[in-house]
Amino acid sequence: MKARVHITLKKGVLDPQGKAIAGALAGLGFDEVADARQGKFIELDLKGEDAAAAKARVEAMCQKLLANTVIENYAVEIG
Amino acid sequence: MKARVHITLKKGVLDPQGKAIAGALAGLGFDEVADARQGKFIELDLKGEDAAAAKARVEAMCQKLLANTVIENYAVEIG
Repeated sequence: MKARVHITLKKGVLDPQGKAIAGALAGLGFDEVADARQGKFIELDLKGEDAAAAKARVEAMCQKLLANTVIENYAVEIG
Repeated sequence: MKARVHITLKKGVLDPQGKAIAGALAGLGFDEVADARQGKFIELDLKGEDAAAAKARVEAMCQKLLANTVIENYAVEIG
């Protein structure tokens, strides 16, 4: 079973990496870019068949290791 | 308009960050994790209304700046 995890900075948290991307894109002529935010994307390969249980386990992984919940949100998709 | 870009390492490219995540999760007792791969996730806020044109522009951004196409794949979603 595959799990896809998106980890993004919470609203209001400064994102210097995103700002650098937006600035570099503007410098290349992509001036339609109003804002850019960079997050992380983690794909997990899981043993087991129970999707609901897997989702709960991956959420626990986010809480314990993958995300810094003070400044980051996470979203888990199974399948 | 929002664009979501996923940048992932191509198959066969070593992913030490993913290996570190898998190892750390195993150490925390999440032994159902067979493999982990880490990629990047970029959200762009775009001016303009034409989704098809925006997708082509964001693909050009990936080619020119966001992805290293020698070792990375990218996927663009608009909306």
